Amino acid sequence: MGRITRDFAVTRVTVEPDGSFSTDTRADSVAGEEPLEVQVNGTTLTTTMRTPGHDVELVHGFLHGEGLITSKQDVVEARYCSGTDSQGRNTYNLLEVALARGVRPPGPEFVRATVTTSACGVCGSTSIEQIMGKRAHPIEPVELDPRVVVSLPEKLRTAQKAFRRTGGIHAAGAFTLEGEPVVIREDIGRHNAADKVIGSLLLDDRLPAKDLILVMSSRASFELVQKAVMAGFPALVAVSAASSLAVDLAREAGMALTGFARGERFNLYSGALRPST
Amino acid sequence: MGRITRDFAVTRVTVEPDGSFSTDTRADSVAGEEPLEVQVNGTTLTTTMRTPGHDVELVHGFLHGEGLITSKQDVVEARYCSGTDSQGRNTYNLLEVALARGVRPPGPEFVRATVTTSACGVCGSTSIEQIMGKRAHPIEPVELDPRVVVSLPEKLRTAQKAFRRTGGIHAAGAFTLEGEPVVIREDIGRHNAADKVIGSLLLDDRLPAKDLILVMSSRASFELVQKAVMAGFPALVAVSAASSLAVDLAREAGMALTGFARGERFNLYSGALRPST
Repeated sequence: MGRITRDFAVTRVTVEPDGSFSTDTRADSVAGEEPLEVQVNGTTLTTTMRTPGHDVELVHGFLHGEGLITSKQDVVEARYCSGTDSQGRNTYNLLEVALARGVRPPGPEFVRATVTTSACGVCGSTSIEQIMGKRAHPIEPVELDPRVVVSLPEKLRTAQKAFRRTGGIHAAGAFTLEGEPVVIREDIGRHNAADKVIGSLLLDDRLPAKDLILVMSSRASFELVQKAVMAGFPALVAVSAASSLAVDLAREAGMALTGFARGERFNLYSGALRPST
Repeated sequence: MGRITRDFAVTRVTVEPDGSFSTDTRADSVAGEEPLEVQVNGTTLTTTMRTPGHDVELVHGFLHGEGLITSKQDVVEARYCSGTDSQGRNTYNLLEVALARGVRPPGPEFVRATVTTSACGVCGSTSIEQIMGKRAHPIEPVELDPRVVVSLPEKLRTAQKAFRRTGGIHAAGAFTLEGEPVVIREDIGRHNAADKVIGSLLLDDRLPAKDLILVMSSRASFELVQKAVMAGFPALVAVSAASSLAVDLAREAGMALTGFARGERFNLYSGALRPST
């Protein structure tokens, strides 16, 4: 569809030491961003801003992360709406999903912006309990090889096509414990990139991802650890920092979590290392 | 509340050239992340993961960005729920907002995860039309001084307290056109940091922000440009890349947009520069 990146006339400005400045205007690639509306059994579930491409995987990964589906058999059909915009073009921005008979469609508590909590006690541990209750597979802990961990960010970057053109797009990748890439996806939203990877694994019948590492070009937020836990990854390697609730959830779920992967160093927030040989 | 950062035992791992590795475990600060549930007139509107602190500003900024309020008089009261968690502590994670009489409360189309679009034609221009229709103030274009633009990222970083401790938290700042800081806020979510800045300006009766620049430590997504447009900022300066739909919306709204602010250089995606003197 050619919408992963778009070219704009962009002015590059350089300020000189004397305070004057020069400009150079030319076409430059910018990361594509378009809304994707997801309809499940005829009801709009969400609209997310994403980089077009791998949308069917994105939707499968999203539905899996929310605990609505557990295998590809739970989806009978996922297809772009056959309608068109005012100029008669299909926008490829509305994906209709039909769930299999027997799969419970999302109820009003999901179609609402959020589950209403009954008391005032909403807190991090409530959020963690909800995830632990929803997940389909407990995690079998693994020992990470530090040499593999330090190699992963560069491997992810090398595989990123759109990043090289735009410098502004996230990537997620599933790698084996030995550091071999299995699937790598890009998106302007880190959560979408993770959903695309998880959706791809689901469609390949590779969930739970019990022998794989999820590698993110971004920070590790609660939301990303949540998606990794739901998919059964035993490890999440983030290029940048982790949040407090991300560390809490990883520790509770028995998932290895690393951050600040830079050069030959990284931080281990949760989990164990394979002993040095 | 002391929850802006939290200390964890973190293991720093260094891989040596011969493949062996060393570890050093000590307390390290991690950016705080906790759920904030927002109730408006008794109904849960959203739950967002945010860094605790400046929550009342956050909620005002969020409601303003969604077009639900336009001034501080539209909110009669915003206070933490008086209840407690199972250990009898107030979690400070539920904020109750009462709208003034005459302010239309969010309808079902908002309480649902998203507005249902009637046709298949959802696309970027639909999203832009919605924002242009909702905003309270048209933007009066300004000319940016390139010397000010290149100075802003460093000024924002200098003001960031939590970043220095954690290395993993976003910042948003409102600056004058001459580069003087007005208000700076931090959050693990860039959209929350922007909401806190905009909420602070609203509570100070400084909206529309027609003589201010919004500076973001992050990339410029559609969502951030949307918040800036709704608040009337004539310029958005992002440290990192812009997305295609962010550029589209900035151009349509007449807002200056710059990205990749690094050292003495930046990219101008939209808007005009003050001529070199």
